[in-house]
This record gives sequence, C-alpha cells and structure tokens, in this order.
Amino acid sequence: MIPFSLRVPATTANLGSGFDTLGMALTLYNIFTVKEILPEGEYSCEIWGEGVDLLKDAKKNMLVTSYLKACEIWGVVPKGFAFESCNAVPLNRGLGSSSTAVVAGVMIANILAGEKFPEAELLRVMTLIEGHPDNVVPCCIGGMTVSCWDGEALRYVRLPALPDELNVIAAVPDFEVHTEDARKILPESVPFRDAVFNVSHASILCAAWAMGRWDLLRVGMEDRLHQPHRAKLFPGTTGEKFLSEIANHPDCVATAISGSGPTMIAIVHGKAGKLSEAMCRIFTEGGAGSHFFVLNCAPSGTVIE
Amino acid sequence: MIPFSLRVPATTANLGSGFDTLGMALTLYNIFTVKEILPEGEYSCEIWGEGVDLLKDAKKNMLVTSYLKACEIWGVVPKGFAFESCNAVPLNRGLGSSSTAVVAGVMIANILAGEKFPEAELLRVMTLIEGHPDNVVPCCIGGMTVSCWDGEALRYVRLPALPDELNVIAAVPDFEVHTEDARKILPESVPFRDAVFNVSHASILCAAWAMGRWDLLRVGMEDRLHQPHRAKLFPGTTGEKFLSEIANHPDCVATAISGSGPTMIAIVHGKAGKLSEAMCRIFTEGGAGSHFFVLNCAPSGTVIE
Repeated sequence: MIPFSLRVPATTANLGSGFDTLGMALTLYNIFTVKEILPEGEYSCEIWGEGVDLLKDAKKNMLVTSYLKACEIWGVVPKGFAFESCNAVPLNRGLGSSSTAVVAGVMIANILAGEKFPEAELLRVMTLIEGHPDNVVPCCIGGMTVSCWDGEALRYVRLPALPDELNVIAAVPDFEVHTEDARKILPESVPFRDAVFNVSHASILCAAWAMGRWDLLRVGMEDRLHQPHRAKLFPGTTGEKFLSEIANHPDCVATAISGSGPTMIAIVHGKAGKLSEAMCRIFTEGGAGSHFFVLNCAPSGTVIE
Repeated sequence: MIPFSLRVPATTANLGSGFDTLGMALTLYNIFTVKEILPEGEYSCEIWGEGVDLLKDAKKNMLVTSYLKACEIWGVVPKGFAFESCNAVPLNRGLGSSSTAVVAGVMIANILAGEKFPEAELLRVMTLIEGHPDNVVPCCIGGMTVSCWDGEALRYVRLPALPDELNVIAAVPDFEVHTEDARKILPESVPFRDAVFNVSHASILCAAWAMGRWDLLRVGMEDRLHQPHRAKLFPGTTGEKFLSEIANHPDCVATAISGSGPTMIAIVHGKAGKLSEAMCRIFTEGGAGSHFFVLNCAPSGTVIE
C-alpha cells in the first residue's frame, strides 16, 4: 500500500449565482504522496511548488490536521507518516487549495484505517472540517456538483462534466484575498428580490447544466448576492471591470469570481488566447501581476495513484 | 380549423424553494373551444364547471383580454369569436387557473393569425401578460420547468416529467387566497443566510429532478423565503401544520404550498389514500371544507384538439 499518491484537483466554487452550493473540479492538481509510516504523533513533509515556505511545518499542515480530525471523528488511532506534497494549485486565491489538503487528509485517514468508510461518510467529514461543501465535494468526486449542508447532513448531486470544447480560464492575480475578509464583506440581509434573483438564476444554471443547455450558462451564472460586494476587495475597479467587460467579451461564455476570489474564471468556447489576455490585462491595469491557466472540468475527482 | 379546442393543464408553481421559478403541469384540465368567428369586437362565451358565475362576461374573461393583448403586441387585427370554457381547475386556489386562460388566449391569437409565431415568442407574450413565468411556461409546454424572467427576456429549461409512480395530491380548501394578498405578506428583505438556504435548496431540487434523484425532493423543496409567511394566510395554525405534519407523514415524499395557495400539494409514492385524508383533515380541523385530486405531472402541456 505504501507509498501511495493522491492526485487532488483544484476547484472553483459558487459559479456566480450558486453561493456555497455549486462547485466544479478543474484539471490542475496537487499530488500528495504518503512515503512511510512513522511512530505515532510524528509527521514530516517535503513541499514542492506552491506554498514551499508556508506549508513546511508538517504538524500545522492542513493535510495532517484534517487527517487527525478524521481519525478523531471515527475513533481511529492515528498513525504518524512522512509525506510529500507537490503543489500546482496557488494558495489563498479561490481555487480550493485548502480543500485539496482536507480531501487528502480525510482520504489518507480512510486508507490507513483499511478503507472502511463509504464515499458519503468521507464527504460528510470533509465538509465538517472545511465548513462548507462547495469545494470539497467536487474536489473528491469530480465534475460539477450541487451541494447542500445543514451542519449535520450533506446532500449532493453530481452533474455531467463540461463538454471538452468548453474550457475554463483561471486568471490568478499575485495578491491574496483571505476567505475571512471575503465573508465579512457580505451583508447580513438582502432585498427579497435579490434573493429571488439568485434562486431563479442558480436554478436555471443547474437545470441548464444537467440538460446540456450551455447557451444558458451566462444568464444562469448572474449573481446579486455576493459578487457585487466581493468585487470591492479587488484593487481599484478591477472587480467591477471583470464582471462587466469580461462578461461581454465575444469569446466569453460566462464569468465569475472563483470561490471567494481573487482568481477570476471564464468559460470559453474554442480558442482561449484573446480572452486570457483580456483577463490578465484587467489585473495589470489595476496594478497587479497575474498568470493564467487554461483548464478543463476534471471529471474524475481525487484519484489514488 | 374552426371549431377547435385547447386542453390546458393546471399548474403548481414554486414547489417550495423555487419561488417565481419552478412550475409543474398537472393532469387536471380546462378545455377551451373556439366555436365560431364573430364580427370584430364581438365575444360570447358559455362556461361549464368551475367559475360559472364569475366568468360569464366574455369581454372581461381573461382568455379574451389575453387574446386582445397578444394581438396588440403582434400588431394583428383581432377577430371576434364565440367560445366555450369547460373548467376543472378551481379558481383562485393556487393551481394556475388564470394561467390556463392566458395560455389559451395567446394560443388562440396565434392560431387565428395563421400560426406565425414560434413557441419562444408565445411563451414570452404569455409571461408578459401574466407577469411571471412559473405557471404559464409549464402550462404551455408541460412537464416540470425552470424559468427566469427579467421583464424582457424569458429563459427556461424543461426537466423530465415526474415518473408515473410518483403522484401529486392537491388538497383544495373552500376558501380563497388572492395572489395580491399573498404577495403583500412577503418581507422586503431577508437574512443573507435564508437567501443562501433557498439558493442551495432550489439548486439541489433542480439537479435532483434532472438526474432522477427523487430521494432528494423533500430536502430540495424546503423553503425559508415565502412559505413561513404565507402559512399565516391560512386559518389558525393550518398552514404551519401542513408544513410540519404533512412533510413528516410517512407516505409524503415532499410537500409545498401550491403557487400562492391555499391549495397544498404533496408528492406521494404509491398509495395516495392516507395522505390525502391527512391533508383534508388538517383543513377540516382549521374549520375549512376541502376536496382533493390525485394527479400526475402532465408531460404534454397545452394540446390543440
């Protein structure tokens, strides 16, 4: 069994209208390898790629803290282990990097316990640790998912993956937005009509996605609950520009803030060059560096290699 | 061409979480027959069944007013006609009886103009006349529909019909709730968390419905936006009892206020007797008479006969 590796995908949550509900796995991965078992309570790690400086204290690494939490929930005696983490998912950018560590930690706990637990229980524990389901569910099972979490029970539905001809551009700026700040900026109450706006748009998005009505993604992803507020966390008018200019770019099928940002995603049909350039240019004009990925929806979720 | 009949289904809108968005056609029909063309501006009608006293003034009948409105929108010279209306859908009970007249009026305008207009245009005009899409869309095209209307553009997706083994009980009390009162009782703003609750539940409902995950209907139909307020329009604690006792009845798959009420619907798997009785008993205990229908989802919408 040991060594074994987990290939864990990045995720983009919310997709505009589907706040705390929708999430999609992307073909950008962190690979975690459990190299050997150590005495109880001992953890060591080697980090490659993203987060080399931030993640090197193994006991504070979210993979280990999630592993320990899962063992505690299941009443399993935790083992010590040495692991390697090869990271392509940028940290604190709204692409679900922390969820990759949570998913890996819980899956390692299950594997080292003899794979006792069914998928639904793994997902429940991942959601409990992460606090909301919209990243961990697609991260674990892949594709596009719709999730609902009441603090105890997790319900989820897996929708078909995006077709191959639709790519996802992720434009990642070189500044960070912390999830806490992105939560704090949300209002305590919203106009009834805005709540109904998001209900109808998220519903259209889910129905359109399930039935392959890709022409409706643009409208379905329109949002009034969180993006107008979170756009203010971007430098200058960068956020507002994305939500207006990029949405109306001729190559753009639909656009959204990825998770709590600051990465912006855009779904593109066919060639991605011009739209990627337009997205990075908005960051440049706002004074921020950026890079981009052209990705697909990852149909398979986390894979044991 | 003349005479011709339109068989137009009842509809149940909202389905709990999907306020102003979701709607389902039901196998309960009004049948409208255009019997002969009359001189311009002349209309006459015969009414059978529901609404005999209320609907007999042809020029005020919503079928005629909707016909005239559609002709005006399309720049078509309206004809006079004599029609017969054989009504099984109770009036002002939340089962879309006014939508049957709107749908029939617009379809008659199209038929008498030589069937010039495509389905999307008929639906747009029906929604414009009715003010919201969640009844007229399923009434016209059948099945379960997800609709989104911004006052100009209508977007909609048709989901598969409910499978035959799932019936819809409609318990219809003998009091009325006027749509205006049911709108007035809604708050101007709602807590952010309740908006998110409905976004996630309506999303799960749409995804589950599309993917045949009927086990998730109960959770998916849970609502915090309108039903807790509208339950207060029912006598005593009748409304609250429905939303708690009927939801937890062992035969009940899911329950909701139908449209703006006061009809209650429940989706039932298999035998409908006990649950129908339980629903009518709650009305009786609240001092109201009632009757019930055991229906299916109508897959075909409005049919020209």
